[in-house]
Amino acid sequence: MNPTLARAVPTPVPALELFASIRAHSAGLAAPLGDADATVQSMPDASPAKWHLAHTTWFFEAMVLERFSPGYAPYSPTFSYLFNSYYETLGARHPRPRRGMITRPSLDEVMAYRAHVDAAVESLLTAGASPEAEELVELGCHHEQQHQELLLTDILHLFAQNPLHPAYREPAPAAVGHEAPEAGWIGFEGGIVEIGHDGAGFGYDCEGPRHRTLIEPFRLADRLVTNAEWLAFVEAGGYRDPLLWLSEGWAQVKAEGWEHPLYWLERDGLWWSMTLNGLQPLDPAAPVAHVSYFEADAFAAWAGARLPTEAEWEHAATSLGALPPQTPDARLRPKPAEDAPGLKQMFGEVWQWTRSPFVPYPRFAKADGAVGEYNGKFMCGQFVLRGSSLATPPGHARASYRNFFQPDKRWQFSGLRLAEDA
Amino acid sequence: MNPTLARAVPTPVPALELFASIRAHSAGLAAPLGDADATVQSMPDASPAKWHLAHTTWFFEAMVLERFSPGYAPYSPTFSYLFNSYYETLGARHPRPRRGMITRPSLDEVMAYRAHVDAAVESLLTAGASPEAEELVELGCHHEQQHQELLLTDILHLFAQNPLHPAYREPAPAAVGHEAPEAGWIGFEGGIVEIGHDGAGFGYDCEGPRHRTLIEPFRLADRLVTNAEWLAFVEAGGYRDPLLWLSEGWAQVKAEGWEHPLYWLERDGLWWSMTLNGLQPLDPAAPVAHVSYFEADAFAAWAGARLPTEAEWEHAATSLGALPPQTPDARLRPKPAEDAPGLKQMFGEVWQWTRSPFVPYPRFAKADGAVGEYNGKFMCGQFVLRGSSLATPPGHARASYRNFFQPDKRWQFSGLRLAEDA
Amino acid sequence: MNPTLARAVPTPVPALELFASIRAHSAGLAAPLGDADATVQSMPDASPAKWHLAHTTWFFEAMVLERFSPGYAPYSPTFSYLFNSYYETLGARHPRPRRGMITRPSLDEVMAYRAHVDAAVESLLTAGASPEAEELVELGCHHEQQHQELLLTDILHLFAQNPLHPAYREPAPAAVGHEAPEAGWIGFEGGIVEIGHDGAGFGYDCEGPRHRTLIEPFRLADRLVTNAEWLAFVEAGGYRDPLLWLSEGWAQVKAEGWEHPLYWLERDGLWWSMTLNGLQPLDPAAPVAHVSYFEADAFAAWAGARLPTEAEWEHAATSLGALPPQTPDARLRPKPAEDAPGLKQMFGEVWQWTRSPFVPYPRFAKADGAVGEYNGKFMCGQFVLRGSSLATPPGHARASYRNFFQPDKRWQFSGLRLAEDA
Amino acid sequence: MNPTLARAVPTPVPALELFASIRAHSAGLAAPLGDADATVQSMPDASPAKWHLAHTTWFFEAMVLERFSPGYAPYSPTFSYLFNSYYETLGARHPRPRRGMITRPSLDEVMAYRAHVDAAVESLLTAGASPEAEELVELGCHHEQQHQELLLTDILHLFAQNPLHPAYREPAPAAVGHEAPEAGWIGFEGGIVEIGHDGAGFGYDCEGPRHRTLIEPFRLADRLVTNAEWLAFVEAGGYRDPLLWLSEGWAQVKAEGWEHPLYWLERDGLWWSMTLNGLQPLDPAAPVAHVSYFEADAFAAWAGARLPTEAEWEHAATSLGALPPQTPDARLRPKPAEDAPGLKQMFGEVWQWTRSPFVPYPRFAKADGAVGEYNGKFMCGQFVLRGSSLATPPGHARASYRNFFQPDKRWQFSGLRLAEDA
Ligand SMILES: [Fe+3]
Ligand SMILES: [Fe+3]
Ligand SMILES: [Fe+3]
Ligand SMILES: [Fe+3]
Repeated sequence: MNPTLARAVPTPVPALELFASIRAHSAGLAAPLGDADATVQSMPDASPAKWHLAHTTWFFEAMVLERFSPGYAPYSPTFSYLFNSYYETLGARHPRPRRGMITRPSLDEVMAYRAHVDAAVESLLTAGASPEAEELVELGCHHEQQHQELLLTDILHLFAQNPLHPAYREPAPAAVGHEAPEAGWIGFEGGIVEIGHDGAGFGYDCEGPRHRTLIEPFRLADRLVTNAEWLAFVEAGGYRDPLLWLSEGWAQVKAEGWEHPLYWLERDGLWWSMTLNGLQPLDPAAPVAHVSYFEADAFAAWAGARLPTEAEWEHAATSLGALPPQTPDARLRPKPAEDAPGLKQMFGEVWQWTRSPFVPYPRFAKADGAVGEYNGKFMCGQFVLRGSSLATPPGHARASYRNFFQPDKRWQFSGLRLAEDA
Repeated sequence: MNPTLARAVPTPVPALELFASIRAHSAGLAAPLGDADATVQSMPDASPAKWHLAHTTWFFEAMVLERFSPGYAPYSPTFSYLFNSYYETLGARHPRPRRGMITRPSLDEVMAYRAHVDAAVESLLTAGASPEAEELVELGCHHEQQHQELLLTDILHLFAQNPLHPAYREPAPAAVGHEAPEAGWIGFEGGIVEIGHDGAGFGYDCEGPRHRTLIEPFRLADRLVTNAEWLAFVEAGGYRDPLLWLSEGWAQVKAEGWEHPLYWLERDGLWWSMTLNGLQPLDPAAPVAHVSYFEADAFAAWAGARLPTEAEWEHAATSLGALPPQTPDARLRPKPAEDAPGLKQMFGEVWQWTRSPFVPYPRFAKADGAVGEYNGKFMCGQFVLRGSSLATPPGHARASYRNFFQPDKRWQFSGLRLAEDA
Repeated sequence: MNPTLARAVPTPVPALELFASIRAHSAGLAAPLGDADATVQSMPDASPAKWHLAHTTWFFEAMVLERFSPGYAPYSPTFSYLFNSYYETLGARHPRPRRGMITRPSLDEVMAYRAHVDAAVESLLTAGASPEAEELVELGCHHEQQHQELLLTDILHLFAQNPLHPAYREPAPAAVGHEAPEAGWIGFEGGIVEIGHDGAGFGYDCEGPRHRTLIEPFRLADRLVTNAEWLAFVEAGGYRDPLLWLSEGWAQVKAEGWEHPLYWLERDGLWWSMTLNGLQPLDPAAPVAHVSYFEADAFAAWAGARLPTEAEWEHAATSLGALPPQTPDARLRPKPAEDAPGLKQMFGEVWQWTRSPFVPYPRFAKADGAVGEYNGKFMCGQFVLRGSSLATPPGHARASYRNFFQPDKRWQFSGLRLAEDA
Repeated sequence: MNPTLARAVPTPVPALELFASIRAHSAGLAAPLGDADATVQSMPDASPAKWHLAHTTWFFEAMVLERFSPGYAPYSPTFSYLFNSYYETLGARHPRPRRGMITRPSLDEVMAYRAHVDAAVESLLTAGASPEAEELVELGCHHEQQHQELLLTDILHLFAQNPLHPAYREPAPAAVGHEAPEAGWIGFEGGIVEIGHDGAGFGYDCEGPRHRTLIEPFRLADRLVTNAEWLAFVEAGGYRDPLLWLSEGWAQVKAEGWEHPLYWLERDGLWWSMTLNGLQPLDPAAPVAHVSYFEADAFAAWAGARLPTEAEWEHAATSLGALPPQTPDARLRPKPAEDAPGLKQMFGEVWQWTRSPFVPYPRFAKADGAVGEYNGKFMCGQFVLRGSSLATPPGHARASYRNFFQPDKRWQFSGLRLAEDA
């Protein structure tokens, strides 16, 4: 989920209320972290929690306050350098792989920076901001939500590097486990369908334009692939059979020594998984998570199926009315599907790899200026994931949402759902 | 152009005649090369000429002779190891980046190997082979044609590493240069169209199934982008403006120090290009060649246009009846478009990047066994090129042909044609 | 200064007193650091401050308490894994380049670990420990002193990565600057001399055996090379003339783009240097610091001189009675030589590169067991530095001390003194 | 054995005779090679045979003909660029790792270049050249001898990359094998001894100045370590015990997966070795070859001994009158020691690693100009080897000769002889 900018669309929630609640949510996410936890960068793909907290704040400063709050002075000139992410148009920036070198400002100082900017934005909104400013605040809120998910994703990766396997949050008493229901297929007709954001409410530029596309008849699994199913793949030698894999994927398997999903660990014949609750026994009924596109594609080949296209996924979600959760959920691990008929787990557990490369929709055009640097420039070498994960903040997901990552990435909350031709 | 296998389709040309002419064409391509020229591997992506000559021979040995010629003994057991390319199903093989270490067998010995296999295949065909054997011979012929183009492509890359800039063949007396005609747009309606191989004649697995697809109204340039146009892009700072580039492309520009197409060279204010005729003055009217997808995409953005999709390209070619050249042409460099109305240069100059990632067509299924290892496993991280180049052997190109390479590759005879939304 | 083990030698300072003062000194060094400062690893060569604090503590636990304190239970089994450094004989250990991933235990928790071990060691010593135990405590103290210097060295490297250039400690009001005196030569006779540790007091294994060696007549500079002299070398093109450099050094200059010592920075024609007091104007009279052997050797060639051998250095120091400082000095930057006759700055400013590779003295033998893993295994590819630096704790330096690093390392407090043949 | 320049010393052999015989020897070495064999570069450390043949020729052209033959025109301006090796003072040069890209000029063309230069040098010498010119011819001859050994060394490395294991020359009928005699120790007194070239006859700059040095009493093995002894080390787990290895050596063992000397190969429980005669059964009585310093040092540690210093080696050789072979020997593999008393195998089998880093002798000074670029700039990170190998041309070896390589290099004809303190 790379940070993206939005098409301008009015929002029903008052900007001030939205802003306050989203900013508070970030602070809550940071609460369990020490200064060191929030500072270290565990790999170039990941960013320190402190960086997420400061960068989202810088976004409001650079995009809103400096343009709409007369007389606003940046909190610190060096912060602009440190916390710009990748906007070539917006000046020099600290190199991404060196974000973990910044031990100062400390976490406390970053929180003070947040408070300073919060006060200025709230004062602007209270005084009555222009529609353009309000839209940019809304955009900043959605941007911050993306970073909220990344903050959790990156902290899990960091803690997984520590032989002590620390927990971001201690687990609640375990619910009594239940088994996953048998997977079933749901059939869909082919034909011309419409996909893409319809303009009602917020959406990122790459979600549109809404357009017609032709799909063939297909079937979609009614739930996600589980850990138990993945374990069968492991035990059947799935990671040792080159014929199941894309050529580049197989090279990766050998180069990295992949034998199971990221964060799985075998000890004395038992399987464990590193989670935000620390090291936990693998739940066979829960959806598999932290698999790459390469692995998802190989699994599907082994299972005699395929991954859905993003058009199939979106058509299924909208035609059957699947909706993302709107209320917070304190879980930090995916949970098994309920034993109920119909399409399940489209949102809120793990992002679902599709077989669709991330390309522009017909008539997509990049915006001018900094805005134009966004999704367009990532449209190469990435695959689309659909749905949302347990780490996605409430209110952030929707059926037209296009998340995307390179096919070798595994540290996201990413899983899969099978499809087949009808 | 990765080697691929075919869907079984009867051919109109007698197999023996096809075989003899294609094998002779390879020998002709090798004629200007010394033993050293034919042995060295200039980069992991490229293969030695000797390897192309031996590998295509091994293909007939492994796929035809060992299965259909009772009593045939392989010419040499080690050759199977040395000249298998990437068939995981067909046993161990010499690592690709080490192909250039094989100074023995010498070029002469490889030609002797070719003669041995030629005799055996011709004897099999003369005695009357089964339809399956004939089909595999035909497949081997198309496979060899792919390697014929690669042989020239790789030799150019090798000779370009040599400060002496040797010529593969001395140029013929230069034709009187002419200017390229003004480029024009040709418009096409949108709607549901059919693309893909129609089953008549030979085609690779990935060219099918033929299927319906939905296109929007668009315009296609009637000729290829020229060196003069590309030079304008260079001089306008195209290689220095990150906003024109895909993010990954820009990283490549900086990492590799790209400032112009591969094989361009500036000396005292004049531009030269390394070609199979040695170092030659850049021809402003000729199509630009040896550009990557990243460069083609950036150029299109700079020109206010875009690359076509592969469906658009194929629809334009078939609806307007563009046909590849059927007769040999001794040229080793692309030539300018004629000053005539209509769609020009669809075939025979340079491959044309499309904006379509190389993905399976709907209902595409990998074949079983060695055949199944082919195009399917490369369907990740590559973009489709359409048309054909001057290095493509006569009879090899067709409108449904899907060539594909990673977006950073530049050593192919690859250029571009612009498109835009209508 | 790689951590090393000692030859057993009785010490005049009571072990308890030594232990308490050295442990307190480490705590004092940690005082200016936040949790994040103490956690991040700025490069594989460096270690986090927290790691230095914990590793030196683990050393007492593993070498003393577990062997001499009956019933002592390790503070935490995972700490042994995390804080072992490189002792192949002492079990698995956390990989060195990943020391910066350990955000937990926090700095506070590490200080609690220190307190726990301090109490146990003090209780052992108070109760009366065996001579062997006392010797190991003394060894642990010298080991900790090495890490005290490394802690400062590594913190400077870390803070130098931060565009904010934070100060480890704010500078005291600047003394009135004075110029460095003219450098003079001091002559020495040749002949057979004795070098190496004489057995009185503590010494590391590699400092002995004391032995005879043959030296030729030579002259040694009476002070260190200054920043002003180095600047002249820079301005004379010293970093651009390959003939001054060792072949490997020149490759390094080009690969890394070296143009001046590490931590130098030019802004608008003025030179600055990153120091433990933050970014400071370069002091022309102070000794140059943070240069590699390659640079020191090239400078000497440019100056028409050479680096001394370690035998020359040690003979000069002992024959002229140069002594290291015995009392603490709060400075964090090297200071200019005094304007006085005689040999100056042999200790307490910067380590001095010699031209001697780090090799065993005649009849040197590795000890058995863990002790044997020490200096012996580093006797390849390193050069000896002599003297001590401002970061060396009082009481740690002596004339026979052999510090050593690879010739490309620059982050130590390393400078040079010239020599020439007489 | 890096190419080096000489101190000027008159030679007893007439220059013309020396020149003719050495040039003819090179041509003989090239005779078994095809164009491809002579062109490919098997690794950056190695050079193509064609390059050795051309570079040694360029040396005479640049150092002799262009300075002493009025009116001599270089054979080809591009050859100077292609065949300069590393002389920063002598203009731009083709990058070393890309020497294998030069398929043209062909081997035949290089031999024509040699003939052209041979004629010009012989004409100069016949006409009567100045003493300076004669000295440079002599230097060029010694330089060419170094490259003669490298040519064989590099061809062996190239052929070892080929799964066909081609032979540079087919082996003569095998002599009846005999066992190596028991190794014995020869004792030497300590004291001040003189080493270094004494000025009589040719010597390289780094072999002098002759000087006094102090050695301690020691014992030297009377023969080289054999393959059988090395196999015992392998079988005792020598490659798996980190305590035997230098730290950097152990890292290399693990990174490269070393389990035995380079060119050893185990098949079905039998050991083979790749040689210039192709793949041959390992001869247990012959000296081990193709081991690195790291391996030699670890073996010595395992054997309870050490490597000699270069002073010890030279003192032993000169005091006992060991002499290199003066007549050609067609062998391409080392042979076992004879069963005779006294010091054996000091020359003519394998170079012998010493524990001495390659550093300047006291009062060594680099020469001015191109000559000064030689040995001096390699005096870092290398260890000295003494003696000579079967690939060293007759007349090239002497007791003061200092060969040197980095401690991880294995492709030379390098072995070892043990020493110990007396
Ligand atoms: Fe962002
Ligand atoms: Fe092929
Ligand atoms: Fe230590
Ligand atoms: Fe040379």
